Amino acid sequence: MPVVKQNRMSKKPLILITNDDGYKADGYNRLIKLMRPLGDVVAVSTLESTSAMGHAVTMQTPLRLNKIKEEEGYTEYLSNGTPADNIKLGKHLLLNRMPDLVVSGINHGSNAAINIIYSGTMAAALEAAMDGIPAIGFSVDEYGQHPGLDHTDEVILKITKKVLADGLPKGIALNVNIPKKSDKPLKGIKVCRQAEAVWKETYEERTDPFGRKYYWMSGIFLDGDQRPDTDEKALKDNYVAVVPSQVDFTATQLLNTLKF
Amino acid sequence: MPVVKQNRMSKKPLILITNDDGYKADGYNRLIKLMRPLGDVVAVSTLESTSAMGHAVTMQTPLRLNKIKEEEGYTEYLSNGTPADNIKLGKHLLLNRMPDLVVSGINHGSNAAINIIYSGTMAAALEAAMDGIPAIGFSVDEYGQHPGLDHTDEVILKITKKVLADGLPKGIALNVNIPKKSDKPLKGIKVCRQAEAVWKETYEERTDPFGRKYYWMSGIFLDGDQRPDTDEKALKDNYVAVVPSQVDFTATQLLNTLKF
Repeated sequence: MPVVKQNRMSKKPLILITNDDGYKADGYNRLIKLMRPLGDVVAVSTLESTSAMGHAVTMQTPLRLNKIKEEEGYTEYLSNGTPADNIKLGKHLLLNRMPDLVVSGINHGSNAAINIIYSGTMAAALEAAMDGIPAIGFSVDEYGQHPGLDHTDEVILKITKKVLADGLPKGIALNVNIPKKSDKPLKGIKVCRQAEAVWKETYEERTDPFGRKYYWMSGIFLDGDQRPDTDEKALKDNYVAVVPSQVDFTATQLLNTLKF
Repeated sequence: MPVVKQNRMSKKPLILITNDDGYKADGYNRLIKLMRPLGDVVAVSTLESTSAMGHAVTMQTPLRLNKIKEEEGYTEYLSNGTPADNIKLGKHLLLNRMPDLVVSGINHGSNAAINIIYSGTMAAALEAAMDGIPAIGFSVDEYGQHPGLDHTDEVILKITKKVLADGLPKGIALNVNIPKKSDKPLKGIKVCRQAEAVWKETYEERTDPFGRKYYWMSGIFLDGDQRPDTDEKALKDNYVAVVPSQVDFTATQLLNTLKF
């Protein structure tokens, strides 16, 4: 595998980028373009979408890596892994030192509320944060192949430059969700908590050409969280929602009451 | 697809079971055997291991379901989905009402500390909890195809019976990790917090028969958490570790200090 190390003497920040919509996605390519003036960039993604992979890592099949582009200050790879794999592969096989920043996205579709747990975009950011690397996942609240993205540039650069300058506490990744493009300007940036909202799935039953049944999952998103400081509320009010996020599932409120 | 609904008139608890080691796994079959006297059981798993799938759900390929066994009070299915898919499929396509309990496992290998985020076993339990269903993920701290399991029966039944009787707060799943079988008896059950511990991965490079490089991930587990009430500490002291777990990634300690 053609491992190319970054220049050890470079004073520029080293930025590792991935996403979960595949390497051709508009959001990914826009994020790369935004990051390149800020540092040396290494980008690792996949041929196809790995959306909804959550924090999956690849243990059952061999991982492969191919370099597909190399320019001054920029190297791009394709892998057959998940977004979390891509961060691990980047750290261990593609870089000669820990990156100064991991950015993931721009995801086509919101990762606010419960979506964070299904999100490959945020899995990549959290994977980096767990290893002490400042990390940000960017998503825009519009699904589809070509979401409006030009309203996201300013806020992405603002947040990224702040994190490059100040760092983040160990273990913290920012879950940044940007409202869908509209004719109204963004109102600003709000630091929020993850909303308690759920998906109610439905399954569409189809029959394949060989007469066998199969199913596609879809669903509707139900946000019943009335708290004033949630990411869903911020998005609805046309603010950029930033949730400082960490991997601690402990329901600490029960530590003293649960007994066996 | 041969959907068989449970008997609507049954007074027995309805228990949905899955795992991530495949339907032949010792832990899964032991868990089914333990649950059957407690209620009507529907089990859904996969042909092969889906270990380390995290909270992945299947969006890119069609889902399939096949009934492979039907006995009084017991139905078993195979799917081609992830553990989280299996809970969603179970709820929507296989049961005529919400289950009273979801149990997942017995996983071959610990899901304590950071392992919870990679764990299909716990993804299934959390998926149920997010929908308000009491849920428990059981794991034994021994990897391999045939871990010692007979020491787990008593504690699994004790915890399960308590959850069936008392329920769990909405959104809570129990992450239950049981020490590896040894000649010392288990000391008891401790309610714990998730330890801050990390994996340091290594990648083994191999060459396939066609001359192409590929990689297998492995790693070592580093537990540097000195707090007295972690799941890792409990396991080391030969206690069963129970972490009440929920899906809220918000780093609430930063909500008032982070500014943009």
